[in-house]
Amino acid sequence: MGAFTSMSDRIVTAAVIIIGNEILSGRTQDTNLRDIALTLGRKGIRIAEARVLPDVEDVIVAAVNELRARHDYVLTTGGLGPTHDDITAACIAKAFGVELVEDPAIAAMLRTREAPPEVMAARLRMALVPKGAGLIENDAGSPPGFFIGNVYVLAGIPRIMRAMLVPLEKTLIGGAVVQSRSVIAYVGESRIAEPLRNVQALHPNVDIGSYPFLKDGRVGTTLVARGTDEVQLDEVLAQLERMLVANGVEPMRE
Amino acid sequence: MGAFTSMSDRIVTAAVIIIGNEILSGRTQDTNLRDIALTLGRKGIRIAEARVLPDVEDVIVAAVNELRARHDYVLTTGGLGPTHDDITAACIAKAFGVELVEDPAIAAMLRTREAPPEVMAARLRMALVPKGAGLIENDAGSPPGFFIGNVYVLAGIPRIMRAMLVPLEKTLIGGAVVQSRSVIAYVGESRIAEPLRNVQALHPNVDIGSYPFLKDGRVGTTLVARGTDEVQLDEVLAQLERMLVANGVEPMRE
Repeated sequence: MGAFTSMSDRIVTAAVIIIGNEILSGRTQDTNLRDIALTLGRKGIRIAEARVLPDVEDVIVAAVNELRARHDYVLTTGGLGPTHDDITAACIAKAFGVELVEDPAIAAMLRTREAPPEVMAARLRMALVPKGAGLIENDAGSPPGFFIGNVYVLAGIPRIMRAMLVPLEKTLIGGAVVQSRSVIAYVGESRIAEPLRNVQALHPNVDIGSYPFLKDGRVGTTLVARGTDEVQLDEVLAQLERMLVANGVEPMRE
Repeated sequence: MGAFTSMSDRIVTAAVIIIGNEILSGRTQDTNLRDIALTLGRKGIRIAEARVLPDVEDVIVAAVNELRARHDYVLTTGGLGPTHDDITAACIAKAFGVELVEDPAIAAMLRTREAPPEVMAARLRMALVPKGAGLIENDAGSPPGFFIGNVYVLAGIPRIMRAMLVPLEKTLIGGAVVQSRSVIAYVGESRIAEPLRNVQALHPNVDIGSYPFLKDGRVGTTLVARGTDEVQLDEVLAQLERMLVANGVEPMRE
């Protein structure tokens, strides 16, 4: 799926564009962002931003062009079906200033199942890709997604989207992989906020997050350290655990 | 919570900004967007766009200023706690070019529970709001959120976020409420794509979406018509059902 030079240790970022009125109306709960983030995270590609956009051409075209200039990769989900509300391929073609053309491989795949002419015509809409695009195969039995430039266009249905992530995980080139370490404690965030800030200040290239939770009526906090240097992460985790003990709280592994 | 003139029948839009590295890393599945969309939808406020942003000041400030100029409302979630990674209040103050000040009502609430000085100092970070902001109360026992201009700043924890939506649902002024009608059928999208496009063409101010599904191994499609005119929606639903029957498919209500 295209040749890439290695991006080695620089920070590699991606933006995700979730396309669909049904997400913005609240009818459908998106889960694709999380699946994409976890998959790309394993490759050392960080999601720097995500947008949920309506089925409106101008809005999608503008976002694609803004985000593909700013990030190493852009991934979109949704709007690849055969109906009138599936406009993603046309939007991507417009964003790149190229024609929408019928891909012969997808068309051949769609023609293997017989159908009346008007049904086949609708089905063949799924063979339309921007001129010059490559295909993103999947083993879900669905037509492929496609990529053009640094923009990867995936289905919206989670099962099919995940199947399209499989080849991407194999081929996309990332940078250093962000690892994480975490510790939980039954303590309110305020009680450890000050010493926690001090640990963060000592490790500016580790990202320490503090996430409160309520479990069985007890207030707790999960501390998560994220960074690319595992030795440093282990040291940060040890410091966090000592900090908790020094504040009279028992550190627990998740 | 501020005086608004009626927005009657014009289209009222909001943008949602989900703030937090933990959403972009895939650690946490966001559910706030859907809750906000459903609540505001009942008020006739349409979510036109949503963004998921990292805990990075410049990125948040730029998005807040872009989106508050473009939409009637902006709602943010996340980053309101007492720890170093909670930067939302500071970002909103910067976006509006105002100071961050201690709100006396929130501070008084936080002081009711005794704590050592350094713990209280951390806790009082949750009393910092942009100068001129109003408060968004909640019955979850948490410090209030706040609003300034057309920007409403809510907690990230879903239980608290939902409690903050309660006063917003009472006070925000929307436009015509978007209603929906839907019908499901065990048919592939391609088979009805053409007649579906014709129904959509007859009703340009109704938004017809087609959502494929797989249930018990059977392919199906949900057709959803959304619009503000209930008489028209009922007519569209009837046309969709007749269209399905004409194509040899049994229409079913969800």
